[in-house]
Amino acid sequence: MNPDERWMRRALALAARGWGRTRPNPMVGAVVVRDGRCVGEGWHPRAGEPHAEVFALRAAGEAAKGADLYVTLEPCCHHGRTPPCVEAVLRAGIRRVYAAMQDPFPRVAGGGFMALRTAGVETHCGLLEPAARTLNRAYLQATTRRMPWVTLKMASTLDGKIATRTGDSRWVTGPAARRQVHRLRDRHDAILTGIGTVLADNPLLTARIPNGRDPVRIILDTRGRMPPDSAMVQTADEVVTWWCIGKDLAPPDTLPARLKVVRCPVDERTGRVDLNYVLAEVLEAGLHSVLCEGGSAVAGSLLDAGLVDEVVWFLAPKLCGGTDSLAALGGVGVERMSAAHKLREVRVRQFGSDWMLTGLLGSG
Amino acid sequence: MNPDERWMRRALALAARGWGRTRPNPMVGAVVVRDGRCVGEGWHPRAGEPHAEVFALRAAGEAAKGADLYVTLEPCCHHGRTPPCVEAVLRAGIRRVYAAMQDPFPRVAGGGFMALRTAGVETHCGLLEPAARTLNRAYLQATTRRMPWVTLKMASTLDGKIATRTGDSRWVTGPAARRQVHRLRDRHDAILTGIGTVLADNPLLTARIPNGRDPVRIILDTRGRMPPDSAMVQTADEVVTWWCIGKDLAPPDTLPARLKVVRCPVDERTGRVDLNYVLAEVLEAGLHSVLCEGGSAVAGSLLDAGLVDEVVWFLAPKLCGGTDSLAALGGVGVERMSAAHKLREVRVRQFGSDWMLTGLLGSG
Repeated sequence: MNPDERWMRRALALAARGWGRTRPNPMVGAVVVRDGRCVGEGWHPRAGEPHAEVFALRAAGEAAKGADLYVTLEPCCHHGRTPPCVEAVLRAGIRRVYAAMQDPFPRVAGGGFMALRTAGVETHCGLLEPAARTLNRAYLQATTRRMPWVTLKMASTLDGKIATRTGDSRWVTGPAARRQVHRLRDRHDAILTGIGTVLADNPLLTARIPNGRDPVRIILDTRGRMPPDSAMVQTADEVVTWWCIGKDLAPPDTLPARLKVVRCPVDERTGRVDLNYVLAEVLEAGLHSVLCEGGSAVAGSLLDAGLVDEVVWFLAPKLCGGTDSLAALGGVGVERMSAAHKLREVRVRQFGSDWMLTGLLGSG
Repeated sequence: MNPDERWMRRALALAARGWGRTRPNPMVGAVVVRDGRCVGEGWHPRAGEPHAEVFALRAAGEAAKGADLYVTLEPCCHHGRTPPCVEAVLRAGIRRVYAAMQDPFPRVAGGGFMALRTAGVETHCGLLEPAARTLNRAYLQATTRRMPWVTLKMASTLDGKIATRTGDSRWVTGPAARRQVHRLRDRHDAILTGIGTVLADNPLLTARIPNGRDPVRIILDTRGRMPPDSAMVQTADEVVTWWCIGKDLAPPDTLPARLKVVRCPVDERTGRVDLNYVLAEVLEAGLHSVLCEGGSAVAGSLLDAGLVDEVVWFLAPKLCGGTDSLAALGGVGVERMSAAHKLREVRVRQFGSDWMLTGLLGSG
């Protein structure tokens, strides 16, 4: 690996420290290098706090003069919640800027590079761009395609079952796989589930790991069946929770103050709340990544609608069997096997005795 | 690896050359070593031909005098289709015999070692025994438990489907995985399938690889629905084929001469031919290993009956979805998730874009 790549890898690793915390901003990491030595580094910890470049430049102090800056995304040139990073870069006397990629955000989109070059700073764009794109794929999709990034998480037996014929589902996977699910929650802006899962499992859907951050919980519940004594309702004042119900329903007036009721149009074909409407609301709220932890129905509907970007499938190496046991994916499904939704960039990892298979859907 | 283990590994590798061809005998490999050099090696190619020891000793000739013999199974001491190997070992002047394990076959069962020791040959038993047991697990189970070894092979999408809601199943997995299935057929004594698969796919179930050997084909067809123009019936004179029908049915008298009709009792609970009866017939015919290539029904029944010893599951990294698509495993299934059939010694391998997950069932 050449030195430029090495510094950019470091910047990418720093950026990832903000995973799940920077919305609606992207994750960014920055490293200031002078005479082949790192003299300052930083990352963007969360919206409202300074950007990565500012932390790195502050840490470098006077050493930034004539130094190189490695940053995972084009420095911003607009006043948002913080002053533009370009100004800080110029003020610090940086000589060269290596950025992994241009920021597609309309108010930046090359303007950061332009401002730097105009002021006489040498700029390079594209160093380890694929890795930078992967890191911020949710932000990039939200910015350019105006859709949140949807990750479908499932945990099934090897034969694709999530519950036995009696409805028993405890537990499909073991503790190591379940811990990884908490890590996934921590890294996503929102979690989507269906009322079926709430009624069957009464889950909390929080990120119960050290320093875990709870995603916004979104429950799809067309007919408003969520019990007032469910864990979701009971904890709605501590964890942001959206209750998505059909728009003709009148919610009861004894709900927790902070439970957000989202009255949604109902899809005529499926008879369920319109998923595109819910995802548009998600995007509107600045949430870029959604982890679907639904059961058969929600997962099948998302897949049928072509709304899944990524699949994280935990496989327990055991067989449930049974014509009447519950399959992981419901919905309509594909008509021809050749039309099945193919995963790209498939990876397999072991967690305890279980296996995690991940991949991307769609044309990418 | 110490030299003894190295020679035994070699003997095991030689033994495996007989895979799928030695029934009702076990696979055996042998290496004659003198002064740290291999002076002869051999393996048992098929029943009726000489045993591994004889080939190895022949190859060694005079050099066998005072040499060591490494053999994957206790040399036999009885006259079967060939004279006992113990005699050949003594005649050759072998000084020491290293065997991986005792032969549980009642007419050997330690008698081979006894005869050798009585004649002054030093014997060692247990070198790499676990590997030797794995290699011959079908033979060992047939000999000690009087049951053939049943391998359940499945190929499903990641969500456990083998056909779409329209019944389309071509293809779940890609060419590399399908080639591996032909290798599995080549290594098994028999293939078991159901009439559903015959009607849906009209398969040949032969081992279409270079030097492939076709297993005996067994079709479970309680109600005798197999069409006379099916590929199975049409090729029954070239490939040994069993047609297992309910015992009250009268088979038509226009069948191919070599199609074997097995009239089986019908299991009252399932309404299908009794699987234990079929497997007993399989064992009776000297067939030790059965590859199940059935669909949902046969696979589910075998699993429900606790008759599966090994699972070979090909997973295509794609999603079919659909409440009405066909799940890999039918049958009754388990009642509690904690009672699901757990796989032991799980391994994952990639074939093209597909994954193969293998493991053992039962208490082992």
